[in-house]
Amino acid sequence: MSIGGELQATLDASRKSWIGTANDPACDFPIQNLPFGVFSDRNNHAPRAGVAIGDRIVDLGALESAGLLTVAYPATHVAQKNDASVFARDSLNAFIALGRDAWRSVRVQLSALLERDNGRLRDDETLKSRALVSMSDATLHLPVEIPGYTDFYSSKEHATNVGSMFRDPANALLPNWLEIPIGYNGRASSVVVSGTPVRRPNGQLKLPDTPRPVFGACRKLDIELETGFIVGRGNALGEPIACADAEDHIFGMVLLNDWSARDIQQWEYVPLGPFNSKTFATTISPWIVTLDALEPFRVAQPVQAPAPLDYLRHRPDGKHGFDIALEVRMRARDARHATTIARTNFRHMYWTMAQQLAHHTVSGCNTRVGDLMGSGTISGPTADSFGSLLELTWNGKKPIELDEGGTRTFIDDGDELTLAGWCQGDGYRVGFGTCVGEVLPAKK
Amino acid sequence: MSIGGELQATLDASRKSWIGTANDPACDFPIQNLPFGVFSDRNNHAPRAGVAIGDRIVDLGALESAGLLTVAYPATHVAQKNDASVFARDSLNAFIALGRDAWRSVRVQLSALLERDNGRLRDDETLKSRALVSMSDATLHLPVEIPGYTDFYSSKEHATNVGSMFRDPANALLPNWLEIPIGYNGRASSVVVSGTPVRRPNGQLKLPDTPRPVFGACRKLDIELETGFIVGRGNALGEPIACADAEDHIFGMVLLNDWSARDIQQWEYVPLGPFNSKTFATTISPWIVTLDALEPFRVAQPVQAPAPLDYLRHRPDGKHGFDIALEVRMRARDARHATTIARTNFRHMYWTMAQQLAHHTVSGCNTRVGDLMGSGTISGPTADSFGSLLELTWNGKKPIELDEGGTRTFIDDGDELTLAGWCQGDGYRVGFGTCVGEVLPAKK
Repeated sequence: MSIGGELQATLDASRKSWIGTANDPACDFPIQNLPFGVFSDRNNHAPRAGVAIGDRIVDLGALESAGLLTVAYPATHVAQKNDASVFARDSLNAFIALGRDAWRSVRVQLSALLERDNGRLRDDETLKSRALVSMSDATLHLPVEIPGYTDFYSSKEHATNVGSMFRDPANALLPNWLEIPIGYNGRASSVVVSGTPVRRPNGQLKLPDTPRPVFGACRKLDIELETGFIVGRGNALGEPIACADAEDHIFGMVLLNDWSARDIQQWEYVPLGPFNSKTFATTISPWIVTLDALEPFRVAQPVQAPAPLDYLRHRPDGKHGFDIALEVRMRARDARHATTIARTNFRHMYWTMAQQLAHHTVSGCNTRVGDLMGSGTISGPTADSFGSLLELTWNGKKPIELDEGGTRTFIDDGDELTLAGWCQGDGYRVGFGTCVGEVLPAKK
Repeated sequence: MSIGGELQATLDASRKSWIGTANDPACDFPIQNLPFGVFSDRNNHAPRAGVAIGDRIVDLGALESAGLLTVAYPATHVAQKNDASVFARDSLNAFIALGRDAWRSVRVQLSALLERDNGRLRDDETLKSRALVSMSDATLHLPVEIPGYTDFYSSKEHATNVGSMFRDPANALLPNWLEIPIGYNGRASSVVVSGTPVRRPNGQLKLPDTPRPVFGACRKLDIELETGFIVGRGNALGEPIACADAEDHIFGMVLLNDWSARDIQQWEYVPLGPFNSKTFATTISPWIVTLDALEPFRVAQPVQAPAPLDYLRHRPDGKHGFDIALEVRMRARDARHATTIARTNFRHMYWTMAQQLAHHTVSGCNTRVGDLMGSGTISGPTADSFGSLLELTWNGKKPIELDEGGTRTFIDDGDELTLAGWCQGDGYRVGFGTCVGEVLPAKK
């Protein structure tokens, strides 16, 4: 059986695991998913590589030590003296750097080991106690060390909404938008993992009634509902990645909340783009869902008119969008439940991830393993499918109501914001888990 | 003698070295300078830490092994098993992370060892052959691993020139410019060391006579004459650096050429700032001149009106500018000599490095050891002191002449661009060396 056929088998919708919680149709982490992350637990404080399945985390290094998992090192790999396992690291970068054959081989082996009828691990209580960790006992860490973070602006609906609000509804899209997957460099240092509290930033605010800006806490704190992809294979400086090859350079996807201080942004962003309004925090979900796991959920991307320039052109029959349902939930400090304030889908995105990566590198710019590329705010066509409070409340003009009372235009201190996303299969779903952050008051 | 007094002695203008070339008044690397870098040579291909003195490089690890140099580890430092010397690395980050006391201690020890009357190293021919490498035999590497690159826009003359050209000469400065040290995130992956050839980027160009952009090689390739500073002590997320403390977080300075594709930039930069027009290459000089070495060349920064908001305010008597003479030289492929096309000075900069760092972090953004912060193009008040071809030729309207014939509006293939900078002392100068790049034709 070729790796292709084995890989296909890992995607079979009828496949079940002996870990019962993985077979719940509402579980984000069925055997078809197998996303990668970095975790630690109370028995072992060392952050290390794991894979989510049901309500458990598979400790990859433990399986490797036990001889149940073999890493396929590429022929070019040179072992270093004292090399630790690629799984015994506090980031996935070393594993990802081994290349796609190694990722796929681990996926195929895990899928087999966790499959309902495979007794190898299932029936070994001692090994299970070492190699399976309960999610409720685990701490999840940033899954990759991020050398570079780029954020795109690829939702036509979002760009149109912003243009309508701040420029001209009749000419909402700027002339370059339909030609370029617009992007900008973000700040990699302040990318944090889901669960990390986010402190409201201070900064310069230009109020309409004063000639000079004042210094103070952001009054228009917002989220941006995004996904991000993780670069799995970099490119050398001066060697662009062709659009047709770009998906081979992507390891997987996460949810991404690009927290934004709208008042700081409005005053600072001309002419060189957003800076302090975005650099205080960007939150990503802890589990990286591989492109392989997303394969069954490919859909055609929207029709692009005008047809992009050649270097951005996909083959006409290609499907380069993904059907990923997305939600934003908001919970006030004392509320029992969160209110879902937006529902949308990644399939609305105008520019594809492959086009983003081709554009990013066409100048010769190099990328590196672990680079994070944000999609830009993902807004759908309807008023309840927008990916930011800026759009949902139309810059504060239309407050939204929370289920347990209270309204919001932007985020209050103590509010917890959650992004969720999943691909709906037949009787199962391939989920991203959640991307959560509670907002703390600004520093005095 | 306190470290303060010992440090003062290293700056003494009359101090001479037993390395004769260091005493040449035109040498960039006298005993007063002692800049840090990373080098390798034909006898030892491993990149490692060094200090420039005259036409030599001091191999710091060799001096440490011989017991002539002791590293002052901070009390909090925990040695790791198999820890190599902080000097036996391919970047200075581990050394820099030890903190300012360690940098200063190395400076004081080196200054004593290299001083004319000190025979300890001078008279030990065997050790000298191991610990001193001729610059002409050495390859210089990127001195730091750069976790984040930020570029500012802090020259009032430059911002005024650009605003006059592309917006309105009567209102050249945007309203936020006098309030904010405007900056944006750059691309760290494509920062290269001086000497690395730079390939002309391809990209989208919007020509005036066609409705859609075309894809092709940049026709308006430019330099930006900048300096950059290297962060020596980071800050935690959510913990801003106060303006008064900011210089304590700076390790030193380099020259920086922020190569820019003006035609790509003009089309892409609205609304999120420059991207492909800048990400193809940024060149820095290999030697980091410490703030300690620059101490004698402090000057008052320009008067700022309006007085900045409190978080950006320096003490009234402080001197936070530096008197650094800067030049740009251009040499056509077959020319024997370069033509100096601009002369300016870092002292013209409106916003100080301390203000840049205070602003960068005031939102809570964290910085890390090795972060690179570019000054922005440094233009002086006169037409021959502008820091870019865009300004020198007024967007191509006034070609410049090269000494050996030929004119330029922007950069031709084969042109070599050199930045140079130095602080002029009494009978010596503290120099940065050069920051050089030759432009290669665009990829077909």
